[in-house]
Amino acid sequence: MEKILWEIIQKVRNQSPLVLSITNLVVMNNTANALLAIGASPIMAHAHSEIKDMINICQALVVNIGTLDEYTVESMKLAAQQANHLNKPWVLDPVGAGATPYRDSVLAELLTLKPTVIRGNASEIKALAKENKAATKGVDSTDNSSDAIQAAKQLRTNYNSIIAVSGETDYIVADAIIALNNGNPLMAKVTGLGCTASALIGGFLAVEQDVVSATAAAVSALNIAGELGETKSEGPGSLQVHILDQLYSLDEGVFVEKLKYVQHD
Amino acid sequence: MEKILWEIIQKVRNQSPLVLSITNLVVMNNTANALLAIGASPIMAHAHSEIKDMINICQALVVNIGTLDEYTVESMKLAAQQANHLNKPWVLDPVGAGATPYRDSVLAELLTLKPTVIRGNASEIKALAKENKAATKGVDSTDNSSDAIQAAKQLRTNYNSIIAVSGETDYIVADAIIALNNGNPLMAKVTGLGCTASALIGGFLAVEQDVVSATAAAVSALNIAGELGETKSEGPGSLQVHILDQLYSLDEGVFVEKLKYVQHD
Amino acid sequence: MEKILWEIIQKVRNQSPLVLSITNLVVMNNTANALLAIGASPIMAHAHSEIKDMINICQALVVNIGTLDEYTVESMKLAAQQANHLNKPWVLDPVGAGATPYRDSVLAELLTLKPTVIRGNASEIKALAKENKAATKGVDSTDNSSDAIQAAKQLRTNYNSIIAVSGETDYIVADAIIALNNGNPLMAKVTGLGCTASALIGGFLAVEQDVVSATAAAVSALNIAGELGETKSEGPGSLQVHILDQLYSLDEGVFVEKLKYVQHD
Repeated sequence: MEKILWEIIQKVRNQSPLVLSITNLVVMNNTANALLAIGASPIMAHAHSEIKDMINICQALVVNIGTLDEYTVESMKLAAQQANHLNKPWVLDPVGAGATPYRDSVLAELLTLKPTVIRGNASEIKALAKENKAATKGVDSTDNSSDAIQAAKQLRTNYNSIIAVSGETDYIVADAIIALNNGNPLMAKVTGLGCTASALIGGFLAVEQDVVSATAAAVSALNIAGELGETKSEGPGSLQVHILDQLYSLDEGVFVEKLKYVQHD
Repeated sequence: MEKILWEIIQKVRNQSPLVLSITNLVVMNNTANALLAIGASPIMAHAHSEIKDMINICQALVVNIGTLDEYTVESMKLAAQQANHLNKPWVLDPVGAGATPYRDSVLAELLTLKPTVIRGNASEIKALAKENKAATKGVDSTDNSSDAIQAAKQLRTNYNSIIAVSGETDYIVADAIIALNNGNPLMAKVTGLGCTASALIGGFLAVEQDVVSATAAAVSALNIAGELGETKSEGPGSLQVHILDQLYSLDEGVFVEKLKYVQHD
Repeated sequence: MEKILWEIIQKVRNQSPLVLSITNLVVMNNTANALLAIGASPIMAHAHSEIKDMINICQALVVNIGTLDEYTVESMKLAAQQANHLNKPWVLDPVGAGATPYRDSVLAELLTLKPTVIRGNASEIKALAKENKAATKGVDSTDNSSDAIQAAKQLRTNYNSIIAVSGETDYIVADAIIALNNGNPLMAKVTGLGCTASALIGGFLAVEQDVVSATAAAVSALNIAGELGETKSEGPGSLQVHILDQLYSLDEGVFVEKLKYVQHD
């Protein structure tokens, strides 16, 4: 499996897919840099006047509702509809699901557009599946990722999406469940690394039709970069910088050696 | 006093308060990272459809008008009204006060909502108090912080807010005046560290009812992190990174040793 | 010529001009920091209610359409009109020219406002001159900069702007053509360094009436900072940081020694 995932990383580097993000204002710079570092070509756009034309030239779409408003929600819906129309993959990052009724009503609409992949933390995935309407604390998870596996299965059944649950262990929930055990606790002190995972998933879906493997490769690339970066860092500021360096210079030997991948059927 | 301020930092780390920022587009990533580094839980949101619900779940609000527009100004007013309604503290950062008539009219409205703390540079504080309508040079101060103490006292009288004036010396103006002498000149070459101070004040007010001590602790934590970070930096780019590392790893011994705090009655 | 360009850098440091950017959401923090590092005073604003007043107090304007929408396009037009009215220089960065019909129609309108300088990559410059309507790949160039010299000459004729084409070699196209050969390939892996070049050009135009020399000095300062920063970097994350440090500490000896400037008549 290490080889299969590594080859997807190589495909991103070789094909440099164009990935459109409609994402939150906090993470735009870092997610663009992460996509560049791994070898993809990022573009951020949201104007209603061009969003469908942008989808036409891109290979994948990432929708992140972190700093949503009425205008950008419309952009997100137009973009996801066009992605579906053209059969292009799209990723939904439901930041802050459960925090407000508005977020939940927007997410209900976006879910009907059947994202290829949904990636969130445990609190967000549970809120999406209506398991714990009131428990979200802002954008940070108050639950363990394993607590959200049932919710992820429910979402999988309802919307036919692949679900990625972030946490100390990351789970990819499809027909089987994959547990990914890379990463480092300091990553939770850098804003928006979950958003970065979602952005990278978009880049990987753009070059690989096996959605589960593409998602696992993206999550693992980021988490292994996080492990490598942490050894060079004195805190979350330098970790944010070093993760980009490590994504850029990640090589097969280290990736294969570090990867902790377990499939549960 | 060192112990009192340090204990507030510890409270932030232990309670990890949820802080909502409606802030400018330039500093969102860095202020979110600074709040995470010191132990708080940041959230950025501005949609009219959810802003009151967001206040309901947050422990403090930070309003920064740096890149205001007609939409976000309405978000700011709704959020501050709800914060007042629920008796939650809120911080106003009047970026660019005096630069344009629009900014001044927006600030006049926000002042009527009686911010718990107002933090700005000397030019901004003087402009808020109508002392030097035309002297602001964009967002950088052209005045020394001590020149703004009278203006700060006037604002204190008019709105019952605590005023923090940033500069080489930082002043906290309440019934007494506190002078804080930490920091480093290179910090002025990093965009938005004033905004970071305001964000941290929000995080500290969320856990501490003594507004003056909370404000002094937040300002001092950032300035001491700036001193420590500067010794590791080759310029403003690396200082921006190292400040986050230092906020994260700040310990009691260094904080107590470095703190320069003088109260003038 | 080295001395002439260096003296413009010194003028920026001494005069600290106020530069207004209406720019894209991805690069705001980095372009503000680059302007601060080189000695200018950045401000970001876009509200229709104040944009003309902002132009009144600034010395130059930078317009970057990267994440344009219907609201900010109106801000850009109002700002450029006022800059022209007050005879202040302005820079156009046509990010993603050719990517969508909307971008092209917005750019057609902005070009009628005769930017002092247009800076883009080869694909963008060719798209602006209608040479390759369909060839743009998002925001990254698929052409060599030398391929765009004819297109740049055409834009020069039509709008009387100075054209800066970014690439492995940067060209400044005026009555003569200047080739600048500094920089480093890793710079293309950092998001928005082209946008940073445009921002710095704005800062340099603010203090220097010789538009060609100001543009060459800004582009060269950034590229030399990129060369110096690369030697300290392990990847694009650290390069983004080190470029700011190097812009801040750039000295005459290194600038004069490193500069690769050739004029073709």
